Amino acid sequence: MAARIGAPPPGVAVGIGDDAAVLTCPDGRVVATTDVLIEGSHFRLDWSSPYEIGRRAAAANMADVAAMGGRAAALLIGLVAPPDLAVADAEALADGLRDEAAQVGAAVIGGDSVAGERLTLAVTALGDLEGRRPVLRSGAAVGDRVVLAGRLGWSAAGLALLQAGVREGLLVAAHRVPRPPYELGPALADAGATAMCDVSDGLVADLGHIAAASGKRIGIRPADLAGEVVEGRALTEREVLGGGEDHALVATLPPDAPVPEGCRVIGQVVADERVGLVIDLDSGTKLDVPGWDHFGTGRPQ
Amino acid sequence: MAARIGAPPPGVAVGIGDDAAVLTCPDGRVVATTDVLIEGSHFRLDWSSPYEIGRRAAAANMADVAAMGGRAAALLIGLVAPPDLAVADAEALADGLRDEAAQVGAAVIGGDSVAGERLTLAVTALGDLEGRRPVLRSGAAVGDRVVLAGRLGWSAAGLALLQAGVREGLLVAAHRVPRPPYELGPALADAGATAMCDVSDGLVADLGHIAAASGKRIGIRPADLAGEVVEGRALTEREVLGGGEDHALVATLPPDAPVPEGCRVIGQVVADERVGLVIDLDSGTKLDVPGWDHFGTGRPQ
Repeated sequence: MAARIGAPPPGVAVGIGDDAAVLTCPDGRVVATTDVLIEGSHFRLDWSSPYEIGRRAAAANMADVAAMGGRAAALLIGLVAPPDLAVADAEALADGLRDEAAQVGAAVIGGDSVAGERLTLAVTALGDLEGRRPVLRSGAAVGDRVVLAGRLGWSAAGLALLQAGVREGLLVAAHRVPRPPYELGPALADAGATAMCDVSDGLVADLGHIAAASGKRIGIRPADLAGEVVEGRALTEREVLGGGEDHALVATLPPDAPVPEGCRVIGQVVADERVGLVIDLDSGTKLDVPGWDHFGTGRPQ
Repeated sequence: MAARIGAPPPGVAVGIGDDAAVLTCPDGRVVATTDVLIEGSHFRLDWSSPYEIGRRAAAANMADVAAMGGRAAALLIGLVAPPDLAVADAEALADGLRDEAAQVGAAVIGGDSVAGERLTLAVTALGDLEGRRPVLRSGAAVGDRVVLAGRLGWSAAGLALLQAGVREGLLVAAHRVPRPPYELGPALADAGATAMCDVSDGLVADLGHIAAASGKRIGIRPADLAGEVVEGRALTEREVLGGGEDHALVATLPPDAPVPEGCRVIGQVVADERVGLVIDLDSGTKLDVPGWDHFGTGRPQ
């Protein structure tokens, strides 16, 4: 895999090929996160190419770095490769990881590959806060606006189309390779975000995480979010509120904070009672949308 | 798993529970390495307890950090858990990871857990160089002494005993939970080590990596290494020269450098021709010991 990765960029003091890599951390801190993706649960080889799987595995992790207000700088890859994985497919997987990392100037700096039955990717992303304080889930305050960056429901709609036999189009492409708004994580942190997370379990579930960690109640207007039409197909409320693989970013911003270009206000932090709940701002009723379950094969991740 | 980990130690700005962790890097750099261990290839649940498997998975990675001259500070864990893994066993695994990390003051700061058929651990270790230059495999010079820290062959002998039905004793324990000489990695770096790696493929194979990366030929005296008797059993030459899971450290030191307490001289860097070879210093013949193949179920890792 090393040969597909290319020369290490500035900031990588030691790249692939030694006992460990060495990454410079000019900020004096490093953001670190790991995700595991397993064939059949998180991707399907008949629906996504190895290149797309590499892109997607990298994106899932780098979105977590963005959700802290950081920029991804490096990836380490743990690969379980079945014996029948073709060399060309392994190379395409590595190319996908490399190309998604390159979207933010990051690079693959290390990894390990073992033989096993089922294709599995454990990706660790390391990132730089560039002097920012990390934005946690726990800082939302009553009166803050809820701000969204990125797409909701596209990946879930693309999955529904794939399950119905469709193999192309914008929504299917969005499922195969998500487009997290990497740049808007640092932008939201700079704007003063009090809490942030990436939407990996679904908007309502992830806002519930912020609400619970912050000890607050959060309200949104589902009617404003649903109904987006893509290539003639309207996204459903279930897709928009419960879809989890677009890796949008959702943050809370103080009332007087600027809303970064490319973000939109979708709700507000309403109270510090009935904490952990996400409600419909118009009706006041609790929104109850199960977390995203990928292909319905296991528990929500 | 988070509940088993305890409070984050100093240096961990953000621990488990948010989108990502944040580790302080006072040195301005971070050492990073990933290993994947898969049930049946790297460990067996009938030969090792989940606690021991956690210890061992952490040790394999933290030894790589030591081999760069660093100290492990944090672990991230990607876990594939089969549906029949008991909660108590998952907790014991987490306890083992935590306790091995604690040997060097490190902590588990993040991870991801997914359902799958076969128990698999992808461990990423992050570490601190504390101002040292990283010790690569490529810096050995003619005239340097080859210095060993830690055990050779104990784990391989323990595996042979397990395969023969033995279930206790020092060698079996050494296979179940290796004892890498973590402190001696930084000590060898401070002493001026020109090259270093951990012995994970076997002494001859790993010295071959240093020899190849450095463009040198390296000589050792196998007769001086074999023959150690543990609990009445003499370690074989194959175990000592080819055994790979004790995670000893092997380094090259300039002739005038002090040999750190606890290390021993086992050979020297002899020439910059016939590079990449490891020879018997007495006979001059090439040592040909295959790399460590764990349970003989796959290629050497």
